[in-house]
Amino acid sequence: MFFTDGRYTEQARAEVQGARVVVERKAPLTAVSDWLSGTRRRNGKRALRLGIEGEHLTVAERTQLAPRLKPGFRLKEAPSLVEQARMVKDQEEIEQLRAAALMGASLFDRALEVIRPGIKETEVAAEMEYAARQAGADAMSFETIIASGARSALPHGRASQAEIPAQGFVVCDFGVILAGYCSDMTRTVWVGRLTREGRRLYEAVREAQEAAVAAVKPGVPVDEVDRAARKLLQKRGLGRYFTHSTGHGVGLEIHELPRIAAGRKDILSAGMVVTVEPGAYLPSRYGVRIEDTVVVTQAGCDVLTPTPKELITL
Amino acid sequence: MFFTDGRYTEQARAEVQGARVVVERKAPLTAVSDWLSGTRRRNGKRALRLGIEGEHLTVAERTQLAPRLKPGFRLKEAPSLVEQARMVKDQEEIEQLRAAALMGASLFDRALEVIRPGIKETEVAAEMEYAARQAGADAMSFETIIASGARSALPHGRASQAEIPAQGFVVCDFGVILAGYCSDMTRTVWVGRLTREGRRLYEAVREAQEAAVAAVKPGVPVDEVDRAARKLLQKRGLGRYFTHSTGHGVGLEIHELPRIAAGRKDILSAGMVVTVEPGAYLPSRYGVRIEDTVVVTQAGCDVLTPTPKELITL
Repeated sequence: MFFTDGRYTEQARAEVQGARVVVERKAPLTAVSDWLSGTRRRNGKRALRLGIEGEHLTVAERTQLAPRLKPGFRLKEAPSLVEQARMVKDQEEIEQLRAAALMGASLFDRALEVIRPGIKETEVAAEMEYAARQAGADAMSFETIIASGARSALPHGRASQAEIPAQGFVVCDFGVILAGYCSDMTRTVWVGRLTREGRRLYEAVREAQEAAVAAVKPGVPVDEVDRAARKLLQKRGLGRYFTHSTGHGVGLEIHELPRIAAGRKDILSAGMVVTVEPGAYLPSRYGVRIEDTVVVTQAGCDVLTPTPKELITL
Repeated sequence: MFFTDGRYTEQARAEVQGARVVVERKAPLTAVSDWLSGTRRRNGKRALRLGIEGEHLTVAERTQLAPRLKPGFRLKEAPSLVEQARMVKDQEEIEQLRAAALMGASLFDRALEVIRPGIKETEVAAEMEYAARQAGADAMSFETIIASGARSALPHGRASQAEIPAQGFVVCDFGVILAGYCSDMTRTVWVGRLTREGRRLYEAVREAQEAAVAAVKPGVPVDEVDRAARKLLQKRGLGRYFTHSTGHGVGLEIHELPRIAAGRKDILSAGMVVTVEPGAYLPSRYGVRIEDTVVVTQAGCDVLTPTPKELITL
């Protein structure tokens, strides 16, 4: 049963398959609990467990739902079956993700054309997003990150009104949604005269990223991929500047399972599509991140992001 | 105390005021519960209630947090204090929202330049979003809705690859984020030769929208505003085609309290900023929505959206 309200009548009928669509004027949770009361009667005295998705239901929604249920119903957090099922992509999905990755990569070419000292980060984002729409993207898969100068040390520095300075890194992290599937990639370029330290930082992150990509194989625990990147940055004395996890699944949503992080127990298997995106961020100075989206294959992995990783200076 | 992780070290230090920033390698919920254990010791034997925001914590997060707490702690859903406090905007916020509304409205001028039969909805969205970035918007406040032809009957028809047909309505619902504050407006235009029925539908929605705006005054219950719009559409035999609520608060987020909907008990007061956006949607045929953002004043309300509401045919 798929409960929705009048705003989505047409969309639900067009998109929901294999479930009955119920359009209600009531709030969805009210409609669900009313319907369940009827079910209870139909099923006689048997107690029923109602599985809820703990990751998607808020505490307030649970509080609203619980007292509306007739006695005999019990709310129970169900395992994340949908997310688990979605981890492994089928061939058609992989081709969609590949097409999205290709379109996403074309935006970086546009970025290279417009990045220069004095242009605002938002202007770079504007040109990339415009190119995405022209190319036929449904939307961007997340808020475009263009982080220049000291802002490149912000791992989540979405494009601001700041002007790109005469010298330093510019982190570009962006993606498109194409036919429902997300792309996600990051490249970092240098503007102005390259310093030895800038080069050193960039190459360390690049080596870490390549080591992590090389670690992606079916049967490998995700935390090993994370460790592969971290170990290399630690060797260069940069371990403490790598302040986030190494990656995440990508599909219909920009963040899906599995997370590629220390302490996570998932095992990679063929058909999983994940990002590999180590970075190093020197607070108030600058940062570098390099990110590809890869698909786990029978033998190892296939990098969907076609863009080279040599340091580009503009 | 503000708990975050290494990705947000710099941003937290720049943006968090009046709270201590704690950057942890642990997951935030783990960091919070560990810190609380220390607090417990400092406070001796006194039992402590820990207020949680039910609207923002998922059931899974609550399940993760609860067993980590030492005995003597009790989780309790706190009222939505932050959302309540944010309902009424101060003068500076109202000026920010006015500036955002003005910038947002300028995108509609761009839409009028590009809407024509044969152009894709996404191309219209692309031009508007590009104009927004050029004007200095931080981002769009939600996914741009350009819904033409039969798609105009989808209240949430975000721009698709569909081409604008030779005749019919085009619903344009869009907003920008400027200095953190959101704009939100909808205008519906007609393309091609206008039919009598199209005109009739448009004028009914326009009257409903204006009746609802006229109902916005301090002291008025929100459901009266909703009723004002609904009553007018019912009088025209269109009541059942108005399938959503009349509006919502706007501020730092695109959807804030109060909701302008049947059955809601909030009372309007000066400084609240809300949308007024009735619509009528004839399934598989077409739909119309008109939306302004208004600020409740001492005497009534001030419409922040500067755009006229006469039907435009292109």
